[in-house]
Amino acid sequence: MIEDFALQCPIPLDDNPTVQMGHGGGGRMTRDLIEKIFLPAFTNDLLAPLHDGAILPPVGGRLAFTTDSFVVRPIFFRGGDLGSLAVNGTVNDLAMCGARPLYLSAGFILEEGLPIKDLWRVVRSMADAAAAAGVRVVTGDTKVVDKGHGDGIFINTAGVGVIETRLTIGPMSVRPGDAILLNGDIGRHGIAVMAEREGLEFESDISSDCAPLNGPVLALLDGGVEVHCLRDLTRGGLTSALIEISESANLPMRVEEETVSVQDGVRGACEILGLEPFSVANEGRFIAFVPAGEAETALRLLGSGAAVIGAVDPPGNQPPLVRVRTSLGTSRILDLPSGEQLPRIC
Amino acid sequence: MIEDFALQCPIPLDDNPTVQMGHGGGGRMTRDLIEKIFLPAFTNDLLAPLHDGAILPPVGGRLAFTTDSFVVRPIFFRGGDLGSLAVNGTVNDLAMCGARPLYLSAGFILEEGLPIKDLWRVVRSMADAAAAAGVRVVTGDTKVVDKGHGDGIFINTAGVGVIETRLTIGPMSVRPGDAILLNGDIGRHGIAVMAEREGLEFESDISSDCAPLNGPVLALLDGGVEVHCLRDLTRGGLTSALIEISESANLPMRVEEETVSVQDGVRGACEILGLEPFSVANEGRFIAFVPAGEAETALRLLGSGAAVIGAVDPPGNQPPLVRVRTSLGTSRILDLPSGEQLPRIC
Repeated sequence: MIEDFALQCPIPLDDNPTVQMGHGGGGRMTRDLIEKIFLPAFTNDLLAPLHDGAILPPVGGRLAFTTDSFVVRPIFFRGGDLGSLAVNGTVNDLAMCGARPLYLSAGFILEEGLPIKDLWRVVRSMADAAAAAGVRVVTGDTKVVDKGHGDGIFINTAGVGVIETRLTIGPMSVRPGDAILLNGDIGRHGIAVMAEREGLEFESDISSDCAPLNGPVLALLDGGVEVHCLRDLTRGGLTSALIEISESANLPMRVEEETVSVQDGVRGACEILGLEPFSVANEGRFIAFVPAGEAETALRLLGSGAAVIGAVDPPGNQPPLVRVRTSLGTSRILDLPSGEQLPRIC
Repeated sequence: MIEDFALQCPIPLDDNPTVQMGHGGGGRMTRDLIEKIFLPAFTNDLLAPLHDGAILPPVGGRLAFTTDSFVVRPIFFRGGDLGSLAVNGTVNDLAMCGARPLYLSAGFILEEGLPIKDLWRVVRSMADAAAAAGVRVVTGDTKVVDKGHGDGIFINTAGVGVIETRLTIGPMSVRPGDAILLNGDIGRHGIAVMAEREGLEFESDISSDCAPLNGPVLALLDGGVEVHCLRDLTRGGLTSALIEISESANLPMRVEEETVSVQDGVRGACEILGLEPFSVANEGRFIAFVPAGEAETALRLLGSGAAVIGAVDPPGNQPPLVRVRTSLGTSRILDLPSGEQLPRIC
């Protein structure tokens, strides 16, 4: 079966062409790859000149600037792929600065032998994700490494956005009494990738939550909510996000475990794999710190799936801790995992 | 012997510590790496908050935005290393847009087992290069891939700069009669890396030309030269740069071979390796297209080593070609290499 996306590829895929060292050499083969893969997918006015860099119109306001490399394996998984991840990951980092994402760069490190079909599928997915998030890929770079010195495809994206709010969004703005909001259920991205990698079949199909977050964040800001801090729940999951903000703000926090939504399938998979759902990576989930009095408004703006999961406490005499109260009434203290639970999940 | 740079490393290097998978997991090990390697090296006000992205003051003017991944092997070579290359490469791409480079991002893809010493040395080199070029590394990311699925260290940098000139710099502005200037001798970077990689000893020590180009470019612009086009001579060297601009501008060009400076050692090495100096990569060389009447001024601003190497001809009836006239009075037509002459040179 030839998939639809493959039919549209300007390089015929019948003979299963692969990436060669020459595609990274800066000569005709490089240009061929640019003209037949990257330009057709990313086409836009700012990309077209193919100069050393993109020239962008003036941006009125503070800028947000961020970067992320994506090395997830396998590159295709239920609910997403390396391409959608590479776009949404950077879009989301910009959104967490309170910025409106505008432009992305895309740097590809390809391993000799990568099927062109896979590259095309990833690049098309990036283009679709960029369109969905309302950003443009305006500049890029491709390098090829010899077989055995890479892993198919790595993508780096950097992003530029404009900060239109006058709020200072970050841990320094978190205040005692702030409500902690979460925009949906957690753990699906990490489990979806692990399932694909290990060939596991769970009772229910678990699909990555990979999604752009600029929509919900700008809904909060445009809706007039006094957002204090935002953080997406990627590597280290909810655990890392809460602990890092607690430590940076030097304020203790508490979370009601039963308010944190976890799909039954994710919970079951975590038990089998010996994982803690709070620490599993997400790619479409974030927490927002807002004044308690604005929590209702914020929930309404975030829509279904969002919940208040906890609150910030006044400073104490000891280093700040994040306490999780279980449905049984007991409580535990969140601890940052030392290394990583799931390697190469994003 | 313990080198000076190693003594300053906040992680003791005596037991030759290496990068572990956990350094990429987003937990305590990741934070340790950030706090002991990246922050001490790159320290600046904008980087400090360690948020998802950097928040930058408004920039008055058009922006330039560019990205490049660096996969050169070996990572240390005479005259530079992967770190200086990663900074200068992106600084130079911004300079080629006529921009003043301001901010860089740094994305690291590390292979499990990389000596921390090598990482520290590369990061320190990046910091030195950033200081020399007057740019700040304001945001970053680190991923770790399992042993055998990377190659020690890959670095992506993206850059943001401000365009203060009102000129439109690019192939579309090239005009018949324009002089083509080159800022120094060519071929040293590619040969220096090849020598290191292959363990070759050439008669003379050949050192990479790796250097930031924002200084000379801004000297031209601030000096009032009407710069039409700029291009740095990286992958594909002078050959690719001339052919690409000729094709984009749809104008033929000619170059006087004897005006293009090549060190004797580079020429000899190229003969041994079967390479053409015009097509070897550089990391501190660029060509500038300026009106013939401003060539003298431009040469003076570029300083010693710079030369007028050719000119743009009026359009003809045929596709534009770049002709090289040799010292013997013969002429040849430049042709873009198909794949690459030297893999992983930048």
